[in-house]
Amino acid sequence: MDAVIISIGDELVLGQTVDTNAAWLSAELASRGIGTLWHLTVADSRPAIADAIRRAASETRLLIITGGLGPTDDDLTRHALADVLQTALGLDETSLAQITEFFTRRQRPMVDRNRIQAMIPAGATALPNDVGTAPGIYAQVGPAQVFIVPGVPSEMRHLFNVHIAPRLDELTGDTKRVIRTAMIHCFGEGESGIAERLGDLMARDRNPLVGTTVSDGIISARLRSEFPTTDQADRELEDTARLVHEALGPLVFGRDGQTLPGVVGELLKRNHQTLATAESCTAGLIGKMLTDAPGSSDYYLGGIIVYSDASKQRDLNIPADMLNTHGAVSEPVARLLAENVRERFDADYALSVTGIAGPGGATPDKPVGTVHFGLTIRDQPTQHLHRIFGGTRPFIRDLTAKTALNLLRLHLLNR
Amino acid sequence: MDAVIISIGDELVLGQTVDTNAAWLSAELASRGIGTLWHLTVADSRPAIADAIRRAASETRLLIITGGLGPTDDDLTRHALADVLQTALGLDETSLAQITEFFTRRQRPMVDRNRIQAMIPAGATALPNDVGTAPGIYAQVGPAQVFIVPGVPSEMRHLFNVHIAPRLDELTGDTKRVIRTAMIHCFGEGESGIAERLGDLMARDRNPLVGTTVSDGIISARLRSEFPTTDQADRELEDTARLVHEALGPLVFGRDGQTLPGVVGELLKRNHQTLATAESCTAGLIGKMLTDAPGSSDYYLGGIIVYSDASKQRDLNIPADMLNTHGAVSEPVARLLAENVRERFDADYALSVTGIAGPGGATPDKPVGTVHFGLTIRDQPTQHLHRIFGGTRPFIRDLTAKTALNLLRLHLLNR
Repeated sequence: MDAVIISIGDELVLGQTVDTNAAWLSAELASRGIGTLWHLTVADSRPAIADAIRRAASETRLLIITGGLGPTDDDLTRHALADVLQTALGLDETSLAQITEFFTRRQRPMVDRNRIQAMIPAGATALPNDVGTAPGIYAQVGPAQVFIVPGVPSEMRHLFNVHIAPRLDELTGDTKRVIRTAMIHCFGEGESGIAERLGDLMARDRNPLVGTTVSDGIISARLRSEFPTTDQADRELEDTARLVHEALGPLVFGRDGQTLPGVVGELLKRNHQTLATAESCTAGLIGKMLTDAPGSSDYYLGGIIVYSDASKQRDLNIPADMLNTHGAVSEPVARLLAENVRERFDADYALSVTGIAGPGGATPDKPVGTVHFGLTIRDQPTQHLHRIFGGTRPFIRDLTAKTALNLLRLHLLNR
Repeated sequence: MDAVIISIGDELVLGQTVDTNAAWLSAELASRGIGTLWHLTVADSRPAIADAIRRAASETRLLIITGGLGPTDDDLTRHALADVLQTALGLDETSLAQITEFFTRRQRPMVDRNRIQAMIPAGATALPNDVGTAPGIYAQVGPAQVFIVPGVPSEMRHLFNVHIAPRLDELTGDTKRVIRTAMIHCFGEGESGIAERLGDLMARDRNPLVGTTVSDGIISARLRSEFPTTDQADRELEDTARLVHEALGPLVFGRDGQTLPGVVGELLKRNHQTLATAESCTAGLIGKMLTDAPGSSDYYLGGIIVYSDASKQRDLNIPADMLNTHGAVSEPVARLLAENVRERFDADYALSVTGIAGPGGATPDKPVGTVHFGLTIRDQPTQHLHRIFGGTRPFIRDLTAKTALNLLRLHLLNR
């Protein structure tokens, strides 16, 4: 069975708010074996909402609608449902009592306007909401089961869990298929290169299906496994995950919620090892990424932001000669920055970056995007990497920080 | 005129990725007086994409599609457009040359698979993409102008700015209303406090209309001025902007594309003054923010990430006694970090932060969210600020960095 999700609100079609509800609901449905045909977002317009409900009800047996249940004049979802059902709104006394009780409990006055939230179309059922004032609404529209929940994410999630999720099993009872998904994250090669390596695994008629997606320099393989039983869907998903891992090797750094700095941190923590950083063009971004994870003080000791030549000389003893001869963006400077910051912090590892993030600063032999990386390891020779990245200043800086972290990750994997 | 936006991708309908493109595009269109009828999200399915294009083209004169232009087998948007146009895909030599050049410039091998990105339907036009490999596509479908851009947000934004935005004026030329919008950004007070100060300016029947929106601790007043002529819309917008400024005073730090670190940088640059940082709990985030702006090396000299107590002692001479007596998160440590990093970098100003970003690390008298700030000014007494922030670790760190920058901004305004 496939569902349709409709999100309602002027703030969404005006672009003032990003809709996170549709993705959350789709993920919940997918985990229960229900696909999503489409997401539709419409404005706070009574005819537009009614049209969307009619269209969805003709294409699906499960329709979930979020938003437009609030107390103000631009909340029109209940009216639109009444239009579709060709009925009128009526006061639901139980809901009114719950709303009144909600305000009493919070010692806040209930304004008359909130009464509208207890109105539902004749023939529909209220879905009690004990975390907010707007009850949800359930109705049958032709063959489709229609659930309407508030757009406030916390209320939407609560009503989904309490009222919708328990009814999904009976809805899907006759179709019996289960969908399991996974994301396998890679760094260090472009999307086309990843696709090349995946080869036939990406055939569109394969199950589990494998696709790719790109976000901030991270390429992820998306896996979707659809089978009659949970056991089989899980087993097939893991089989395909293994094949993806084999095809991509060390390009893979993590899965689902894992991040590149998080994985690097885990590897360091496991080894009881420490890290320091010397950042020029990223100016703190690597340190910031490393410390996004709680508990990062176990392995990250700190660093120096050597954003000026004076700081490179004074704080990490880069000789003026070296800066003059090779330039601040050069292999010898990257190497020495890493070596000296490691020594200074007495860390097991140190990473350094020096580069031209642009848009200014390019020279004939050093275009914007030129970055030199250093990785020093206690008692081992320093490693160096040279890259020329394309793109905008923020993209180059983000990719620089991730490339540095990935350099360390690859070393930690191979040690 | 109203537009339609279609987002394409299995990862979107599966709920693995939240679609931020549709909201961004809608906001851009709204700022140019173009509403959005609806957003639709569909899977990587050739017939589903083709159906969506046909339906949208029958309801709107402007259709923007994101996603499905990558080099892999699940990228099917170009094929679906060809189906709608009842034509075949053909190789666009100019695009192929640009893609080849993209790889050459980055010294990366181009795999054969990338050739598909130079294929566009006969009768359509390629929109060159100089920040990625996939050119966009423009086509006329019935009365609708159809623009297709990659789903990668940075490429989508770039192609919108370069190829779509310049053509919107001619598209909207015949409509008789002009909308001008502005965002006035504030920091240092909550949304309800800002609303309180704005008072009647926020009346819903006012034109220009004033609303508020919150994003990452920044409260912005949204102004929307709608009048028959450009002159009048602009003049009324500026009149209201002035009233908003008067109501909010120094809470206002900037407008539209301005950012808090960018504004601080501008103030420093104007004064030919310099800044250094000492970061504990933000671990580089302040440095990163300050250097998001090109040319930031004019005023930002660098800093020390004193993430460990050892680094605080060794790199900024915080006495062990002081750490033992007061703790690393304390007023004397914040003050001394700022003073010593300023002296070390010989900067005009220095900012320091030391705090508990959580979720661990709290003590009975120092809850999670406790942060001490130091601001040192050459030849002046050091300032100190103490805050207790609520929220998650990333939120506390982001707010800490912005509060530090705002402390300096307020000083620079008053000097």
